[in-house]
Amino acid sequence: MSETVLQTAIDAATACADIARQTVLPHFRTSLRADAKSDDSPVTIADRQAEQAMRAILEERLPEHAILGEENGMSGASSDWLWVLDPIDGTRAFLTGRPTFGTLIALFHKGRPVLGLIDQPVTGERWLGVSGRPTRFVSDRLPGTVGTRPCPQAAEAELSCTAPEIMTAAHAPRFANLQKHTRRTSWGGDCYAYGLLALGQIDVIAECTMKPWDWGALVPVVEGAGGRITDWQGQPLTLESDGTVLACGDATLLPEIVRHLS
Amino acid sequence: MSETVLQTAIDAATACADIARQTVLPHFRTSLRADAKSDDSPVTIADRQAEQAMRAILEERLPEHAILGEENGMSGASSDWLWVLDPIDGTRAFLTGRPTFGTLIALFHKGRPVLGLIDQPVTGERWLGVSGRPTRFVSDRLPGTVGTRPCPQAAEAELSCTAPEIMTAAHAPRFANLQKHTRRTSWGGDCYAYGLLALGQIDVIAECTMKPWDWGALVPVVEGAGGRITDWQGQPLTLESDGTVLACGDATLLPEIVRHLS
Repeated sequence: MSETVLQTAIDAATACADIARQTVLPHFRTSLRADAKSDDSPVTIADRQAEQAMRAILEERLPEHAILGEENGMSGASSDWLWVLDPIDGTRAFLTGRPTFGTLIALFHKGRPVLGLIDQPVTGERWLGVSGRPTRFVSDRLPGTVGTRPCPQAAEAELSCTAPEIMTAAHAPRFANLQKHTRRTSWGGDCYAYGLLALGQIDVIAECTMKPWDWGALVPVVEGAGGRITDWQGQPLTLESDGTVLACGDATLLPEIVRHLS
Repeated sequence: MSETVLQTAIDAATACADIARQTVLPHFRTSLRADAKSDDSPVTIADRQAEQAMRAILEERLPEHAILGEENGMSGASSDWLWVLDPIDGTRAFLTGRPTFGTLIALFHKGRPVLGLIDQPVTGERWLGVSGRPTRFVSDRLPGTVGTRPCPQAAEAELSCTAPEIMTAAHAPRFANLQKHTRRTSWGGDCYAYGLLALGQIDVIAECTMKPWDWGALVPVVEGAGGRITDWQGQPLTLESDGTVLACGDATLLPEIVRHLS
């Protein structure tokens, strides 16, 4: 990516995160009854409005790029450049008033994520990752410094996962085996957990049934903080990946974790 | 409780929450390696310092009251009045940099909680419950209005629980049965989930292996918001309870939930 293209992409991603934050926040904790099946649930409205607002920015600034969003699918020209958007990652968190949901914005080039942004609208935290560069963390209230922490042994690792329900019957026993070999498991978090791993607060995250809009933005953020992010076999994530995602803060820990997940 | 005693207790609880917040926040996200076994882990230091600071306030203002804290056990005169303190409820959340841990302050009278305060140091939210009065919610940034929401049927209920690991072998199948009869489960949260139930964001919380410092403060907060909080048999929580805790935002839902947990 040339410097000019890169800066245009960073500016566009930042503008998307800003507009998503403005769009989503007014719907947070507004309803007494969140109905995910209904088209007018607050999470659906916020999701749809935020994706439309982000698409408008990208279509204006980068009309030659394609866009894939969780809400509206694929659009735009066929291109090596693909924006992948998830306005509200953490539907359950949003629906229950937890401030831990986030907005995910990724730019893929030839099938690999080269730019990733995690925004936390409520806490005001934001992570920006770009392939080959150090991840940046912007936060006006909550503390944190970018950089994964050393954790060479699974037995010392803080493991995190959003929910046991995301595990398929095939993956559940493999995850349970990993739990036995790690120190402790904390639950909940969605994309936020990957941001915390990038701040050296969590050592390992293992999840499955993940779509490209769930993991695309996480890759540059985690790698730019010194971590590794792969599938459960330790292979790079691609648009054809099997939906398993494994993040390790300490890259040297990866082979042991892959073994426990086998 | 007379108005004067009540106001003294509310002022003391508020002062305790203020000092705990000031004491705990500097330790949040400070360590690259949180070691719960070591005496100098950030969570242990913060826990201990905050409990000492709260005890000092209570001993000065209400010397005739007893104090039970998670860190330092029981102290003070034998009395009908017992303060029950948990400086950091949500050790796992604190250890992994999540802003969802909280401080719990309860005042028991003759074995029943009559005042409860939930403070979220990072998000700046605070709930204050007093027996027979409406719960108060103070928040300078995050939105929310006190009041549980109607949810007469389990099938519509948003269920929440901190972690599957808190379930004993005897309780796990009962919780799994409840999950089958409710709409969706969200994980993580500790005391924060009870605050969100009091804001009408969550319908049911079922947990076990809970100590008095885990649940004491929750009772007046949940009941003062219109909800019910009992053990898994639907019986009032007492210092002799079995450690199971069940909160329902809609009081009419309680019998059905108790049945699913049987």
